[in-house]
Amino acid sequence: MLVIHKYGGTSMGSIERIKSVAKRVAKWHAAGHKVIVVPSAMSGETNRLLGLAKEISADADPRELDQIASTGEQVSVGLLAIALQSLGVKSKSYTGWQTGIKTNNAFTKARIESIDGDKLLADVNNGIVPIVTGFQGVDSEGNITTLGRGGSDTQAVAVAAAVKADECLIYTDVDAIYTTDPRVEPDARPLKVISFEEMFELASLGSKVLQIRSVEFAGKYKVPVRVLSSFTEPDIAIAVEAKSGTLITFEEDEQMEQAVVSGIAFNRDEAKVTLRGVPDSPGIAYKIVEPIAAANVDIDMIVQNVGEKGTTDFSFTVHRNEFKKAMEVLEKQVKPALGAKEVVGDDKVCKVSIVGIGMRSHVGIAAKMFKALADENINIQMITTSEIKTSVLVDDKYMELAVRALHRAFELDKVGA
Amino acid sequence: MLVIHKYGGTSMGSIERIKSVAKRVAKWHAAGHKVIVVPSAMSGETNRLLGLAKEISADADPRELDQIASTGEQVSVGLLAIALQSLGVKSKSYTGWQTGIKTNNAFTKARIESIDGDKLLADVNNGIVPIVTGFQGVDSEGNITTLGRGGSDTQAVAVAAAVKADECLIYTDVDAIYTTDPRVEPDARPLKVISFEEMFELASLGSKVLQIRSVEFAGKYKVPVRVLSSFTEPDIAIAVEAKSGTLITFEEDEQMEQAVVSGIAFNRDEAKVTLRGVPDSPGIAYKIVEPIAAANVDIDMIVQNVGEKGTTDFSFTVHRNEFKKAMEVLEKQVKPALGAKEVVGDDKVCKVSIVGIGMRSHVGIAAKMFKALADENINIQMITTSEIKTSVLVDDKYMELAVRALHRAFELDKVGA
Repeated sequence: MLVIHKYGGTSMGSIERIKSVAKRVAKWHAAGHKVIVVPSAMSGETNRLLGLAKEISADADPRELDQIASTGEQVSVGLLAIALQSLGVKSKSYTGWQTGIKTNNAFTKARIESIDGDKLLADVNNGIVPIVTGFQGVDSEGNITTLGRGGSDTQAVAVAAAVKADECLIYTDVDAIYTTDPRVEPDARPLKVISFEEMFELASLGSKVLQIRSVEFAGKYKVPVRVLSSFTEPDIAIAVEAKSGTLITFEEDEQMEQAVVSGIAFNRDEAKVTLRGVPDSPGIAYKIVEPIAAANVDIDMIVQNVGEKGTTDFSFTVHRNEFKKAMEVLEKQVKPALGAKEVVGDDKVCKVSIVGIGMRSHVGIAAKMFKALADENINIQMITTSEIKTSVLVDDKYMELAVRALHRAFELDKVGA
Repeated sequence: MLVIHKYGGTSMGSIERIKSVAKRVAKWHAAGHKVIVVPSAMSGETNRLLGLAKEISADADPRELDQIASTGEQVSVGLLAIALQSLGVKSKSYTGWQTGIKTNNAFTKARIESIDGDKLLADVNNGIVPIVTGFQGVDSEGNITTLGRGGSDTQAVAVAAAVKADECLIYTDVDAIYTTDPRVEPDARPLKVISFEEMFELASLGSKVLQIRSVEFAGKYKVPVRVLSSFTEPDIAIAVEAKSGTLITFEEDEQMEQAVVSGIAFNRDEAKVTLRGVPDSPGIAYKIVEPIAAANVDIDMIVQNVGEKGTTDFSFTVHRNEFKKAMEVLEKQVKPALGAKEVVGDDKVCKVSIVGIGMRSHVGIAAKMFKALADENINIQMITTSEIKTSVLVDDKYMELAVRALHRAFELDKVGA
C-alpha cells in the first residue's frame, strides 16, 4: 500500500514524540508499505515564531510572516528524517518548494494549485521515506507561502492525491471522529465510518479534528482519509492500527451506519454582522459581499430578511477574529455606498449544526431540532440548511446546552440510532 | 553608495537588538544609500536547532542538519524585514535559494559557486532594502546547504561582489581589528587600516573577527570590507560611523601603517598528528594527505622531517574537532597502506603567528620571534612561514605567554611601530 502519514504538532511535540513517530513509520515501512510523511511543526513552535514577529509589529507583512512561520515545519521534517535514519530507514526531508508544491500568493492563507508527485514517487520506489513539510508551498514568484493554520491536513491530502495514495492516515490527538465533541457531551460516540459529505459538513462546521480544506481536497480527488490516534503504542500490530479510528469514505455501502443524524457540530468562532435598511434591489447581495471578500474575509452563513418599506436586512457571519474588519468594511464602504440605515454586530454567538446523510430521505428532522432547542428555551437567531445539515446560530452561552440537547434528541449515544 | 550591512548573531540577539539594527539600516537608507542587509540567526538559535538534531542522533545526516540549521537565519531575515517595514522602510527578505545563491553540495560546509545579484539590484533601485540570509544557499539539485559556522561573513562579501557594492560593512561585537586579541594582551591596539593580505593571514590564523573565506572572497573580488561595532548607538552620525572600525584595503597607500609586524594571531583549535617511519619515496605526501582530504578534514600546517634510515616523519595539524577522525584515517588506512611505523598525536597544542606586510622587506624577523619565545622558555614544535607571516606550534599552556611576549617584542602597543 502507498500511504500518507500525517502527524500533528502534538504528535511532534518533543524529541521523544518524534522518535515515537519515527518508530511507527519504520514499522509501516518494514511491513512493505510505501510511506510518505507530512508532519506539522513541533507544537507551540509556530506560535513562538509568530510571537516574535508580533513583538516587532502587530501588523506585520504577511509575506514575512510566512517566511518566518514556515521554518517551524522545516525543522520538524529534518528532525524526523534524522530519527528515521537512526532507525536504519532511508529518509529525506523536503520543504514545500523543494517538492514542487505550488500555491497562489495569498500569504498566510494560500491555496495549493499543484503538487509535483514525481520526486516523491521516485523516492518511495527507491525505498526512501520522504518527509514533506505540511502547511507551506511556493508561489509563482518564488515566495514562500503558508496554507494557514491546520493547513498540514490539506497538504497531506493534496500529497496523497498527487501520488494517488491508497489511503491518507491523519494521526492526531483524538482516536476517532465522534458524534460530537466528548468534552461537551460525555456520551459522544466514536464513528467507524463516515461519508465524505458528512465529514465535510462536520469539518466546516467547526469539528476541530480535520481542517475543512483537507476534506474538500479529499472529496475532489477521492482520497480515502482515516483519522486515528498517534498516542497508541507505536508497535501496535499494523493490522489493528490500519483498521482503527474513523474512515472517511465515498461510497455508502452496507458498512455505513444509516443514522438519520450522524453528528452534532458546533463553532464558537462565529460573529454576526447585520446591515439594516438596505434598498431592496437586484444585485444588492453582491454589492455587500464583494467588498467583504475583497478584504479577504470569509463569510459563512448568510441570511437576507425583508425589512421595512422596500428595504431589506442583510446578515451574515464571519470568523470572530475578522469581526472588527468586517464591521469596518460595512461601516466605511458598504453603508455609505448603498445608503443603508445602520450596521450592527454581535460577536457573542455560536453555530450549532446537525449533520447526516439520512436527512436526505427523512422529513421533519429540522422541526425536531427546533423543538429540542425550544424545550431548552434557546432562541434561534439565524438558520441555514443544506441537503445533509441544518445549522442554527444561537447565543454563545447556550452552546453546550444546545449540543447536549440535540445529541440526546437524536439518540446519538446509541449505536445504529 | 551601495553598501552591504552584515550583522552577526549577537547583533540580532533579541527583538530589541533587531529593532536597533533596523534603526541603523533605516538611517543609511534615509541618507540616500542603497543598502542590502545580511543578518545571522539570532544568537544561540543555530546551536539550539543543531542541539535538537543531536538529541536524536549524534551522527545525523548533514543534508538534514542543513535543512534544520538554515531556518535560524530564515527567521531572522523575516523579523528584520518586519522591523524595517515598521519604520516605514520598504523591505523584503530572501532565503539563499530565493536570491540565487548556488553552492556545491558539501553539506554543513558548502562553498558558494555563484550569486545572482539582479534581483537584489532591482530591489535597491526600487527603494527596497533586501534582507538576505547569510550562511546558506542551494545546490544544483535544490537541496538547502549551509556554508558552515561564520559563513554569513562570506555570504555578505559574496553578495557585495555580486552587486559590485562600494563597501561591505561587517557589524560585529568588536569595534575594530586589533594587533592581537585584547583579552589576551590588554595593550592590543585597534588598526584603522589593514591590507587584505595581512587580514587574510590574521583571519586564517584564528583571529575570530572575520571568517577566512570571507577574506578570500573579498580579495578575489576586490570588495573593500570594513569591520565595525554594532554596539554604538544606531543614531550615531553616518559620517562618523562610515569611518569607524578597521578598513581592509587592497592598496598600500601612504595611509597604511608601515609596521614590520601588524598583528599577532593565535589559534587554540589545533591538533597535531604525526606518522612516524614512513618510507621516504616520491608521492608519499600525496598518499598521506589524500585520504585525509577524502574524509573532509582540512589540513593546516604540514611538516616533513627526515627520519631514520630511508624513512621520514610526516606531521600536520587539523582542527581539534577532527583530531579523532584524522587519527583514525591514519591508523586504519594510511599506516597499513604505507607500512609506516606508528601514528602519534597531540591535541593540546596551539598556533601563534606574527603577520605583517613589512616582513617582505625586513630580514631577521623570524629570528627575533624565535628569540622572544626562547627567552620565555617556550619550546617550538613546528614552524611554517610565508612571505608575510611566520607561525609556530607550541604547547597549549604557553599560548597567552607567547602572544604577550611577541606583542612586546614587536612593540605593537606603540602606534607606527
